[in-house]
Amino acid sequence: MSDKIKLGIIGYGNLGKGAVEAIKNTNDMELVAIFTRRDPSTLQISEPGIKAAHIDEVEDYQDKIDVMLLCGGSATDLPEQTPQFAKLFNTVDSYDTHAKIPEYYQSVNEVAENSNTTAVISVGWDPGLFSINRVMAEAILPSGENYTFWGKGLSQGHSDAVRRVNGVKNGVQYTIPSEDAIEKVRSGSNPELSTSEKHNRVCYIVPEDGADKAAIENEIKTMPNYFADYNTEVHFITEEELKRDHSKAPHGGFVIRGGNTGDNNQIYEFSLKLDSNPEFTASVLVAYARAAHRLSEEKQFGAKTVYDIAPGYISPLSAADLRKNYL
Amino acid sequence: MSDKIKLGIIGYGNLGKGAVEAIKNTNDMELVAIFTRRDPSTLQISEPGIKAAHIDEVEDYQDKIDVMLLCGGSATDLPEQTPQFAKLFNTVDSYDTHAKIPEYYQSVNEVAENSNTTAVISVGWDPGLFSINRVMAEAILPSGENYTFWGKGLSQGHSDAVRRVNGVKNGVQYTIPSEDAIEKVRSGSNPELSTSEKHNRVCYIVPEDGADKAAIENEIKTMPNYFADYNTEVHFITEEELKRDHSKAPHGGFVIRGGNTGDNNQIYEFSLKLDSNPEFTASVLVAYARAAHRLSEEKQFGAKTVYDIAPGYISPLSAADLRKNYL
Repeated sequence: MSDKIKLGIIGYGNLGKGAVEAIKNTNDMELVAIFTRRDPSTLQISEPGIKAAHIDEVEDYQDKIDVMLLCGGSATDLPEQTPQFAKLFNTVDSYDTHAKIPEYYQSVNEVAENSNTTAVISVGWDPGLFSINRVMAEAILPSGENYTFWGKGLSQGHSDAVRRVNGVKNGVQYTIPSEDAIEKVRSGSNPELSTSEKHNRVCYIVPEDGADKAAIENEIKTMPNYFADYNTEVHFITEEELKRDHSKAPHGGFVIRGGNTGDNNQIYEFSLKLDSNPEFTASVLVAYARAAHRLSEEKQFGAKTVYDIAPGYISPLSAADLRKNYL
Repeated sequence: MSDKIKLGIIGYGNLGKGAVEAIKNTNDMELVAIFTRRDPSTLQISEPGIKAAHIDEVEDYQDKIDVMLLCGGSATDLPEQTPQFAKLFNTVDSYDTHAKIPEYYQSVNEVAENSNTTAVISVGWDPGLFSINRVMAEAILPSGENYTFWGKGLSQGHSDAVRRVNGVKNGVQYTIPSEDAIEKVRSGSNPELSTSEKHNRVCYIVPEDGADKAAIENEIKTMPNYFADYNTEVHFITEEELKRDHSKAPHGGFVIRGGNTGDNNQIYEFSLKLDSNPEFTASVLVAYARAAHRLSEEKQFGAKTVYDIAPGYISPLSAADLRKNYL
């Protein structure tokens, strides 16, 4: 029997598919099964030999899986699923509704503490790696200001909004950090910047035949909340161009702290440039599955966030190796 | 009596001075005393009301100091001082002789475990923050390559080397990361790059009266190990220009990982742009003093590195606050 860490995946959308890729890149973990609410025989799994099972069978796997990756969505799946599955398994999830994290933590923590499981919540890049950097930068440079920029990234919500505009056949929207704003922050001047001053919005629109392009552009640019306050560009393209150039899900962003010590400026910056948002997010989940496994073996049960987990816990290497080769 | 964390500083060079500044920026820590091998009355301390004491008096402070910041040098001070003072205090140090860290760890760990103290070793930005990012990036993106660039930074060793050249009155040397090399790495192409391909060297030289500038430039550019393999620039300036433009100790650098998931490139980047290297390094030490204090209160004794310390431990905020406001 292998001594690899045994993982399961619940939910086979983009994140679950990314998790399959991410596990394949490790040497110390293996995927036991993917669980779905659909008919398991209908799953198109990219890797051969991976078991698909119905989510109702999950209890049969309690002894076969060390950590369950919860790859559902934050809106409705995770608030229900995480407390349910943390009763049975150590879990890692990417819950990202920032405002509701405290109550989510509390409900998951109660279950995990009572069930002697370890539930690592809200993992990914934001929340996740960006969260770590916001806190570390401020702890190190208490005098200063944190800035978070998102993008260049495909925004699902804004893409949905442009597709609802009259005369639009298809389209996507990218959120793009303002180069000007980033340069101001990097200069150490700690400017006051609203979200709309920090980001521009660029739309690629496939119009319906004979649609009024000027009217589309105007409706998008004046849309309240979504676009009106932003510097917005609208480009018209063909369906073929949309498929060819805009079918990936890139994302990324920057956390920058402009800090001061004595009379000196100190700039701390963390950034990601991701060709695939779901594959990267899944890779973070898989790395934190190591931590969930180790914490559970140390009987550190309950809900944990990235703030509770030492960096060495997400690495497959021993503490001695890390000190020797990476410190 | 205040419930602030009580700190002491051993060694009042640039790092010790930076630590005074860094402690001033916190609300939860206070400086009890600075210890020196010199006559304490000769210390010019920038802040009023701070006690200076002789290093031989340090034992009298065992009950008055929670964490001692060891601000000596890595070459001779720390290998001797850390085991000595870890017998008496929780400590934080910036030991940065990468190749000797394993034996240093072992000698400090033995003392700290036997003395029920917590000794956080090799803290700063490299080793320190850069080390964390090298490991986290690789844990998340196992398929890929890490790159560390240093600079723009004043290099003490290389500045010493140019000042030994015949005809040089004074001078400084900056290590500067190659923009070309950084762009290649950011493109995700994972190029093979030697240290000399990743960095350029720029020297500002004050020549002695009547010195042969061409000979100086040639001797510098052909100096083995230090300059011969590098793209090196030599600029001649006056003593006044040197004082005016080159009296700070800036530094910084980049850790970049070009990783792959599936067919996608994922770029992970961490960088620092520091106007004062010693003040920033000291700020990291002070933040990790919180961790040393908390670990010690949890009876997690022994030597620890940044890999063993969860991000929340260096923050003055509660876990609930971090989840609510930063995650």
